[in-house]
Amino acid sequence: LKSQRLNGISHRGRVLTLDSMNPNVKRVEYAVRGPIVQRAVQIEKELKEGVKKPFTEVIKANIGDAHAMGQKPITFFRQVLALCSYPALLEDSKFPEDAKKRAQRILEACGGHSIGAYSTSQGIECIRQDVARYIEKRDGGIPSNPDNIYLSTGASDAIVTILKLLVCGEGRDRTGVMISIPQYPLYSAALADLGAVQINYYLDEDNCWSLNITELRRALNAAREHCNPRVLCIINPGNPTGQVQSRQCIEDVIRFAKEEHLFLMADEVYQDNVYAEGCQFHSFKKVLFEMGPEYSNTVEMASFHSTSKCYMGECGFRGGYMEVINLDPEVKAQLIKLVSVRLCPPVPGQALLDLVVNPPQPDEPSYATFMKERTAVLSTLAEKARLTEQIFNTVPGITCNPVQGAMYTFPGITLPQKAIDKAKELGLVPDMFYCMRLLEEDGICLVPGSGFGQREGTYHFRMTILPPTDKLKVVLQKIREFHLRFTQEFS
Amino acid sequence: LKSQRLNGISHRGRVLTLDSMNPNVKRVEYAVRGPIVQRAVQIEKELKEGVKKPFTEVIKANIGDAHAMGQKPITFFRQVLALCSYPALLEDSKFPEDAKKRAQRILEACGGHSIGAYSTSQGIECIRQDVARYIEKRDGGIPSNPDNIYLSTGASDAIVTILKLLVCGEGRDRTGVMISIPQYPLYSAALADLGAVQINYYLDEDNCWSLNITELRRALNAAREHCNPRVLCIINPGNPTGQVQSRQCIEDVIRFAKEEHLFLMADEVYQDNVYAEGCQFHSFKKVLFEMGPEYSNTVEMASFHSTSKCYMGECGFRGGYMEVINLDPEVKAQLIKLVSVRLCPPVPGQALLDLVVNPPQPDEPSYATFMKERTAVLSTLAEKARLTEQIFNTVPGITCNPVQGAMYTFPGITLPQKAIDKAKELGLVPDMFYCMRLLEEDGICLVPGSGFGQREGTYHFRMTILPPTDKLKVVLQKIREFHLRFTQEFS
Ligand SMILES: Cc1ncc(COP(=O)(O)O)c(C=O)c1O
Ligand SMILES: Cc1ncc(COP(=O)(O)O)c(C=O)c1O
Repeated sequence: LKSQRLNGISHRGRVLTLDSMNPNVKRVEYAVRGPIVQRAVQIEKELKEGVKKPFTEVIKANIGDAHAMGQKPITFFRQVLALCSYPALLEDSKFPEDAKKRAQRILEACGGHSIGAYSTSQGIECIRQDVARYIEKRDGGIPSNPDNIYLSTGASDAIVTILKLLVCGEGRDRTGVMISIPQYPLYSAALADLGAVQINYYLDEDNCWSLNITELRRALNAAREHCNPRVLCIINPGNPTGQVQSRQCIEDVIRFAKEEHLFLMADEVYQDNVYAEGCQFHSFKKVLFEMGPEYSNTVEMASFHSTSKCYMGECGFRGGYMEVINLDPEVKAQLIKLVSVRLCPPVPGQALLDLVVNPPQPDEPSYATFMKERTAVLSTLAEKARLTEQIFNTVPGITCNPVQGAMYTFPGITLPQKAIDKAKELGLVPDMFYCMRLLEEDGICLVPGSGFGQREGTYHFRMTILPPTDKLKVVLQKIREFHLRFTQEFS
Repeated sequence: LKSQRLNGISHRGRVLTLDSMNPNVKRVEYAVRGPIVQRAVQIEKELKEGVKKPFTEVIKANIGDAHAMGQKPITFFRQVLALCSYPALLEDSKFPEDAKKRAQRILEACGGHSIGAYSTSQGIECIRQDVARYIEKRDGGIPSNPDNIYLSTGASDAIVTILKLLVCGEGRDRTGVMISIPQYPLYSAALADLGAVQINYYLDEDNCWSLNITELRRALNAAREHCNPRVLCIINPGNPTGQVQSRQCIEDVIRFAKEEHLFLMADEVYQDNVYAEGCQFHSFKKVLFEMGPEYSNTVEMASFHSTSKCYMGECGFRGGYMEVINLDPEVKAQLIKLVSVRLCPPVPGQALLDLVVNPPQPDEPSYATFMKERTAVLSTLAEKARLTEQIFNTVPGITCNPVQGAMYTFPGITLPQKAIDKAKELGLVPDMFYCMRLLEEDGICLVPGSGFGQREGTYHFRMTILPPTDKLKVVLQKIREFHLRFTQEFS
């Protein structure tokens, strides 16, 4: 082979094959858009072509995509975006003055006053200032510096970027990254791609998916035998598990990170999605600073936010930001260089983020409508969170923790041994078999728990609570009936 | 150190430092947004604060950002984008019917009819169909399959993704990637990040920066001594060199790629930017298929396009696509999985791309205005291309090839030995010293040739031809005077 190459004789086969491609990419897995979703898309096509099925539409409860599930955009946000896209509308009396003011301010911050110009790679400066002010307000006045804010192409982009900075070393010195199991699969995918070592710590299903420091320590100590653990990732509120971390727990995690010399990554994209009574969102940044200078001056951290979730659910715009704390100034320069290579995050997404962090104020004309729309979305989500827990827990063989926050439930399912055997026979993991059957029989698309990780021998699925309430009720009812049928069939 | 770690005793220092970060990221360089641009931003701030300078504004001719240089967006595109952002405008009689039709079609293809929903990771299907039709029309009917089209976050994203698939192996087996020198620094940056081997082939400055197969072969043979060359990257029309490849040359390159078993990457983001008489854009795809099945059935290729350049210059939207040819189906599945991790390209950018590949037709109401705007941009660019070559070539010590296409000139500059010595004394590469002086004295921001690569002992700068004609004339005149002054000073 090598001599062929050296002689310049071409091979028969392709240059790029499964055998000759980047092996790290091969190791990447991404269940949220995996085989079950591909099959769902296929079934949708079949339905369109008139193929008869026991259902008339596929309900995709596999992905946290609010607009796709019928949620309407916030009027004010879209007005400003229209004004930014086509500034001739600034003359139009149909648009409220506050929307125009916002659009004008954004346009003035753009090169040539156009959202079609590249921005600086870190993101438009006045938007980073607005983000900093938003964080300060959210965190009760703890200062935030716009220089520590980096706008991004969705939170995904920022998360991957920080991981990329952190991963190095070979063999036993290879960087290890601690992630919760069940996890959001962006993390495992990014770690595979970077060739980092994934360190699993398990959330406590029996305690409402809470994070347990003893388990963190177990995972860390085990990992130290074979890699160099340097990073601890937390998702709060949790995806796929829907838990909201207590203030105490966050303090414990920060203390643990300091003691163990770990870089903290706090994924807080669901910060407005808290529903359960007694639960409240506490940002890692706030708790860190309240723990005093011993912590706030030393613990290195990045926290992430996005336009995709919360009440706005604007996934398609790919807006987001991260705030870095105690990042080495030399590393910051490297970070800026790294983000420069892709030029800049999408400017419409930056504009949208600006509106999210700086929404209409009480004295502005759009305030009332904005608040009405925002409240409606969040209270409907809260209702659907309760409904989901309630109905699932009426089903023998399904155990569902309260959906305290975020947009998902991750119930445990008891599968009969015969179903497990049947799945093995088909070469499928048991909960994939379960979800595939549900899809084929009822047109409901869920993601098997195995796509997120779960304790050996347990089975789950993830479902979003995003379908409209009426539809959600139908979905829950159908899953209930399916589960009973399925259990029956394999008993 | 290791025992400290094992004992759980925290280090004094930070987790993430220059010494403990990803070494590949450290190796990344990105001149287009490098130190000279950072200094330009600083000077702009100083001017705002009232600091006296020998000039009143900084003219940034460092980056191909048309809107930032005052170019106005295409009206039709922005009307459709406003309609997509705020569909209530579909009732507004001020918008032309064809814009509404386009917006409606895009919205219907979006989840929940909102551009705020995630799209499929490969990009919205009907937009990929439009892209395929555009390519077919461009290439005189050669078929294009929407399944081979992948929408992206600007061309940058797609280029990095394909490189990521291709890079593997260790030591002598490490993947080598051939890039033109001078190059667009996205390529060297991505290769450093991936830890691939960069193989330089030099464009022929004496022949209008043309590509020479003998030089390709020289570079390839030399590289085979120490790595596994698998990829050949071409930029046509060229950045930073502004050349347009002849059809013959493209054929030769394709033949070379086939003989040498190389994967071709054709960066064609400037496909509408061709100005020089006798020059014409030929897509690699078209030439490949015209060479017959022996080539079109075997040569693996990806070609790239973007919304950022051409007549629209919509950089901020981060729209783009790639078409893959002869990609192994198993690798395609891996590619889809890989792009899924970041969920989807920005949907407003996808919408914009749809308009670029499917602009107003002769029988539609927006056609006349669209054509007027498009033609005005392209003919002004052609005029500025001529002007630039002409004026630079009147300056003793500046040699400028014709700007046949794209948006840049990369003139060679003769620097006096004393200037070279002075630069060395200051620890700067000579053309960086030159550009820094020009920036400080005249407020003109160019990028030194060293940021793109150049033959040892030669010096250049890259300038965009994008400033408005009047301003461009001033810039050219100022550079002329600066060059004479600078040469005088160091003689
Ligand atoms: C926990 C978590 N983090 C990050 C993301 C990424 O979102 P985006 O890239 O759209 O901002 C998601 C999306 O579902 C998520 O659930
Ligand atoms: C040759 C070339 N390729 C790719 C790009 C990337 O452009 P974008 O990511 O904005 O599409 C550029 C931008 O200047 C370029 O000049």
